[in-house]
Amino acid sequence: MGVLSESLTQVLIPVAALIGIGFALLQWFLVSKVKVSAHYTAPGDEYSKSLIGDSDMENGVHGHEVTIKCAEIQNAISVGATSFLFTQYRYLTIFMGVFGAIIFLFLGSVKGFSTKSEPCIYNIGNLCKPALANAIFSTIAFLLGALTSVLSGFLGMKIATYANARTTLEARKGIGKAFITAFRSGAVMGFLLAANGLLVLYISINLFKLYYGDDWEGLYESITGYGLGGSSMALFGRVGGGIYTKAADVGADLVGKVERNIPEDDPRNPAVIADNVGDNVGDIAGMGSDLFGSYAESSCAALFVASISSFGVSHDYTAMSYPLIISSMGIVVCLITTLFATDLFQVKNAKEIEPSLKRQLLISTVLMTAGIAVVTFLALPSEFTLYDSGTTKIVKNWQLFFCVAVGLWAGLVIGYITEYYTSSAYSPVQGVADSCRTGAATNVIFGLALGYKSVIIPIFAIAVAIYVSFSLAAMYGIAVGALGMLSTMATSLAIDAYGPISDNAGGIAEMAGMSHEIRERTDALDAAGNTTAAIGKGFAIGSAALVSLALFGAYVSRAGIKTVDVLTPKAFIGLIVGAMLPYWFSAMTMKSVGSAALKMVEEVRRQFNSIPGLMEGRAKPDYANCVKISTDASLKEMIPPGALVLLSPLVAGTFFGVETLAGVLAGSLVSGVQIAISASNTGGAWDNAKKYIEAGASEHAVSLGPKGSDAHKAAVIGDTVGDPLKDTSGPSLNILIKLMAVESLVFAPFFATHGGLLFKLL
Amino acid sequence: MGVLSESLTQVLIPVAALIGIGFALLQWFLVSKVKVSAHYTAPGDEYSKSLIGDSDMENGVHGHEVTIKCAEIQNAISVGATSFLFTQYRYLTIFMGVFGAIIFLFLGSVKGFSTKSEPCIYNIGNLCKPALANAIFSTIAFLLGALTSVLSGFLGMKIATYANARTTLEARKGIGKAFITAFRSGAVMGFLLAANGLLVLYISINLFKLYYGDDWEGLYESITGYGLGGSSMALFGRVGGGIYTKAADVGADLVGKVERNIPEDDPRNPAVIADNVGDNVGDIAGMGSDLFGSYAESSCAALFVASISSFGVSHDYTAMSYPLIISSMGIVVCLITTLFATDLFQVKNAKEIEPSLKRQLLISTVLMTAGIAVVTFLALPSEFTLYDSGTTKIVKNWQLFFCVAVGLWAGLVIGYITEYYTSSAYSPVQGVADSCRTGAATNVIFGLALGYKSVIIPIFAIAVAIYVSFSLAAMYGIAVGALGMLSTMATSLAIDAYGPISDNAGGIAEMAGMSHEIRERTDALDAAGNTTAAIGKGFAIGSAALVSLALFGAYVSRAGIKTVDVLTPKAFIGLIVGAMLPYWFSAMTMKSVGSAALKMVEEVRRQFNSIPGLMEGRAKPDYANCVKISTDASLKEMIPPGALVLLSPLVAGTFFGVETLAGVLAGSLVSGVQIAISASNTGGAWDNAKKYIEAGASEHAVSLGPKGSDAHKAAVIGDTVGDPLKDTSGPSLNILIKLMAVESLVFAPFFATHGGLLFKLL
Repeated sequence: MGVLSESLTQVLIPVAALIGIGFALLQWFLVSKVKVSAHYTAPGDEYSKSLIGDSDMENGVHGHEVTIKCAEIQNAISVGATSFLFTQYRYLTIFMGVFGAIIFLFLGSVKGFSTKSEPCIYNIGNLCKPALANAIFSTIAFLLGALTSVLSGFLGMKIATYANARTTLEARKGIGKAFITAFRSGAVMGFLLAANGLLVLYISINLFKLYYGDDWEGLYESITGYGLGGSSMALFGRVGGGIYTKAADVGADLVGKVERNIPEDDPRNPAVIADNVGDNVGDIAGMGSDLFGSYAESSCAALFVASISSFGVSHDYTAMSYPLIISSMGIVVCLITTLFATDLFQVKNAKEIEPSLKRQLLISTVLMTAGIAVVTFLALPSEFTLYDSGTTKIVKNWQLFFCVAVGLWAGLVIGYITEYYTSSAYSPVQGVADSCRTGAATNVIFGLALGYKSVIIPIFAIAVAIYVSFSLAAMYGIAVGALGMLSTMATSLAIDAYGPISDNAGGIAEMAGMSHEIRERTDALDAAGNTTAAIGKGFAIGSAALVSLALFGAYVSRAGIKTVDVLTPKAFIGLIVGAMLPYWFSAMTMKSVGSAALKMVEEVRRQFNSIPGLMEGRAKPDYANCVKISTDASLKEMIPPGALVLLSPLVAGTFFGVETLAGVLAGSLVSGVQIAISASNTGGAWDNAKKYIEAGASEHAVSLGPKGSDAHKAAVIGDTVGDPLKDTSGPSLNILIKLMAVESLVFAPFFATHGGLLFKLL
Repeated sequence: MGVLSESLTQVLIPVAALIGIGFALLQWFLVSKVKVSAHYTAPGDEYSKSLIGDSDMENGVHGHEVTIKCAEIQNAISVGATSFLFTQYRYLTIFMGVFGAIIFLFLGSVKGFSTKSEPCIYNIGNLCKPALANAIFSTIAFLLGALTSVLSGFLGMKIATYANARTTLEARKGIGKAFITAFRSGAVMGFLLAANGLLVLYISINLFKLYYGDDWEGLYESITGYGLGGSSMALFGRVGGGIYTKAADVGADLVGKVERNIPEDDPRNPAVIADNVGDNVGDIAGMGSDLFGSYAESSCAALFVASISSFGVSHDYTAMSYPLIISSMGIVVCLITTLFATDLFQVKNAKEIEPSLKRQLLISTVLMTAGIAVVTFLALPSEFTLYDSGTTKIVKNWQLFFCVAVGLWAGLVIGYITEYYTSSAYSPVQGVADSCRTGAATNVIFGLALGYKSVIIPIFAIAVAIYVSFSLAAMYGIAVGALGMLSTMATSLAIDAYGPISDNAGGIAEMAGMSHEIRERTDALDAAGNTTAAIGKGFAIGSAALVSLALFGAYVSRAGIKTVDVLTPKAFIGLIVGAMLPYWFSAMTMKSVGSAALKMVEEVRRQFNSIPGLMEGRAKPDYANCVKISTDASLKEMIPPGALVLLSPLVAGTFFGVETLAGVLAGSLVSGVQIAISASNTGGAWDNAKKYIEAGASEHAVSLGPKGSDAHKAAVIGDTVGDPLKDTSGPSLNILIKLMAVESLVFAPFFATHGGLLFKLL
């Protein structure tokens, strides 16, 4: 037994979660001290004032008119985002009902809805709860996971739309103030999400225990539904939000920047509000649901594998709760890390932003390494036994330390490499910018090549993490390795959410007609935000790879497969078809963005042509119509890719059986992770290559610019191509690989009993 | 025993090969009847005449000046191509020497260069030849394969550069005449290659037998070196040729079409000769080497697996030669098929071109199905036994018929689907063309999505082929399935080579200043050629997938691996790193094309700026300098990607061992095939979307055009991006997956004995 007693564990986990929530509320309070406006004016009449506003006055801290203007825009964005999410949630409620019923029916049918207790599979000689109970509790866990995921996304969106205008207003006082506002708001989201996920999972386990008692096999099998719920909501959040934001963004850019030659986020552009709403529903709410899903899944995978280890059999509650204790420690470590950015070292100029965010990653990783060591020696017995497909494996606690730590450090490597390939401070992005000299075609060729190349080191990092943790502690090692990577999630999310908040802040500054100086400050925040967004995606993809593998391992155990031999026809066809699924999925999502963007372009063109005085800033565009186009398109278009992901495992398992499904999971994992990384980095690099030319901060950059030069036009085309890659297809792919794995895990008993219909018939 | 006696088999195979060669020579003779010119004029003085030539005269069949002009251009292209290939071959000779030595040393070291006979592995109780002999004969086979591959590419290039101007001249008489000239020339290449490959392999086996006698294990093990030689030359051919052709093409287009607004292939463009040379060294010589490699590898894989089956053990020569007999039948079937295009149904107008080529695929597939049935029942005993990793499997001859047939028909499906996604006659390409309305960015987004989508059905077709042949006859089934797909290689190559010949013909028409009408005819030939080129690539990729799997299976047998379980850390890290290699490789090749194209752009711009009268057609550009840039770039840049492919299996096998290498092969196979298909189809679709707008053959197309419209400019950008995807990265990837597999197979005894150093140390 470890040092930590069961009762102390029972106290420490919820306390850590509450500390996280408390810290998030404190940050929110600090952000709220920036006042936006006491009262709004009626929109419409006042509209054009800000466009011709006096720029000296704006720079003053108390420019009242600007404050009102910002409040107005913030309100429009917030209303748009809230209304979209509520509409989306209506669809998702139907989905949750239907899919919940499918889970219940499929799992219930395994033993013909019998209410008789069954002999346990691992805890030999004892009786476990009936399969029907597992069906019911899996369904409940699914619904809980789905609701927590939705809540995570919604809260993130709320704080982001609360913080955007505040960041803009603080930019008047200086870049440091603006940075701290955006960063604190990101932290609110990061901590709320990490703490919430932990708390709900902790409470659920304790409530489920009231029924399950000593049947931990059944208990933790049912809990896996939590991960499925979390990830399936994340899928729709990412895909729907991704289509929304990019349809608006691409549509706005194609007409605004390319045809009409007006700046990004210009208030005359009818799609500008939809674009800013999109950042909040896609990059914020989608990312929140996504990382929550990864967290829930890796916890569930680790708990499930642990429940059939010696912890589970000997009912060592503290050791069993090791995954939750790691996350608890993570919250404390991230809290300390945050203080480094907000209090210890304050950002004073644009050049300090990126290093400060990078430092967050390094500090949290170093501190967490010590944290893991403490937790491991306190919570785990000095050695324990894993049962893995019939064989047993004895693991020492220090070995488990390495499993978690290697995941954590692999995350840091991925973060740093992503920064290298997407930040304009280094040669790869500068090379892409340089290729714009010869036009858009070479820009696209170089950008694609950069994305492909950026895959190499992250894959080696993932491979090392997998090899070490797999060798030391089999699938349990992989699962806690994934948790290690996600243990600093509060910090990663904070620096990730910082990006879209800064993007919005820039948009608001432009729309409120603030001066060039303010816009330059928000641009600097935004450029760093592009890089951190790419880093966040890198984390999400890296952790997704580990999580999927852990879930895959858990699925294989639960489905009773001994080996997944690619040299059998059933597994190999699964492998090759699985490797194809990310392409099918990307084709759908990219086409969706393209089609929705075409509709947006037509609407924006129509407004410019039919609303007199719009170009001159005398008339107000119809923002609502563009919001509607994005909303309708994203809700309609999220269904086919969602169906592809959710149906593939069901079809493969039901008709082709557990071996083919195992192949499908392995194939989609190894193929999807590559496309996801390359898509996200290519897009980030194009975006920053464009910003590099625009900012003109070096001699080389000046030679390519200024805005409107041929090279800049070529850069804008690259940026536009990158939009769906980096914000729709790429980040959705990591959900694809996780979700297919967790779904297979939940349905494994059904597939093992009734699956492979087609081969049975032949 | 089958019906066919050993002595009859010994006669029929070489006779079929000789028939193929004879038929190729006949076609060559028919093409040679088109006279290009009796004597060349000195170049230079006469240069500008054709630019201001009288277009009425050209249309006349006997426009002497035009004939001379065409001869001149043809000569320049031919000289350029020959000189490039010879320079490339000098490098390759060094490579062959070094790599041959590596093969000898690695394989010789397996038993410490001992000259003692060893007990056989499969033919238990008998003595087999020493490992040193296998090292020597593998090296010889490698050199033979390499030489045959080089010869295949070279002959293809020769006939293509012989036929291009003849096609142009025949276009004056009508589209049917031009088509038949281009098609016959393609057939020369197809038949020469298929027959040559068969003949050299047949002779080698018989010569090797003089030494090996009854030791068939050793004999067919050594013969696998033939496949390795073929494919490693193909790699350099494809990569080097691909970089050459696309650097020239992209460079020529970026300055000529985009900046200077002059037509494609305009003689004023200094890169125009390099571009036309490129078609011959990349698309023709590269493709020839590539398909020869596939053929050699699938034959070797099938022969190797057969040698350790009951055929091999009982020394049934006819059954053993089944793979060669299939290829012999293929030559006869393709011969009949060719007559349908050249004699039975003649093309009369542009609309008939594509259906005529498609019909070739269908006819050859239908006839070959019957051919396979005949061969199978004549050559094979009614049942036989396969030995597969310790287990035995009894296979009936009709089951083997299905293995070959399913490969053949999967090839047809891939061909038809490729046509659907890349021909402007169908909605996918039209949709991509339509997306050009909103600019280059949406064109790129839609094109990428099209490529991703085009992967779906081919992968299902490959999966079905694999499942059927794998289930019926294990790895032997896969190998003969691949041979089935390649059995109509003469026809596939003919329609594939037709593409670049037509492309060149168009270039020559433009450069010779021929009239708009002629140019329209060659454009129609060329548009169909883009589609057939994509079909050819589809075949190459599909067959590569099957061949790699067969080689992979043979490797696993030879390395003594029982299962490739992805749920072991060693195999899984191999799988994920293997899936990354195609990205790494593509990053290298795309970047190479990009950089070389930039150099070309600078040179072309320099010439336009510094040569007075060039734009006006009064001065001649310096073609040779552009040829030199392409040559230097491609020779320098082909080395790193080549090294990546050749070193990966050596590093993985030597340091990480046979299990990790198995993972690498499976990963690169399932990931590479997807990128290869999508890259090749995306590029083909962009090219034809551009041609669709240019041709303006429908109301829709007219609304997007004409040349020079904004939509057309956007289409040109897509086409340029697609160039390296479809002609460099994409087609090279199928060599990557095949070559890594065949290399692993050849080195398997070494890896099994000395491999896995790193894990042994840890």
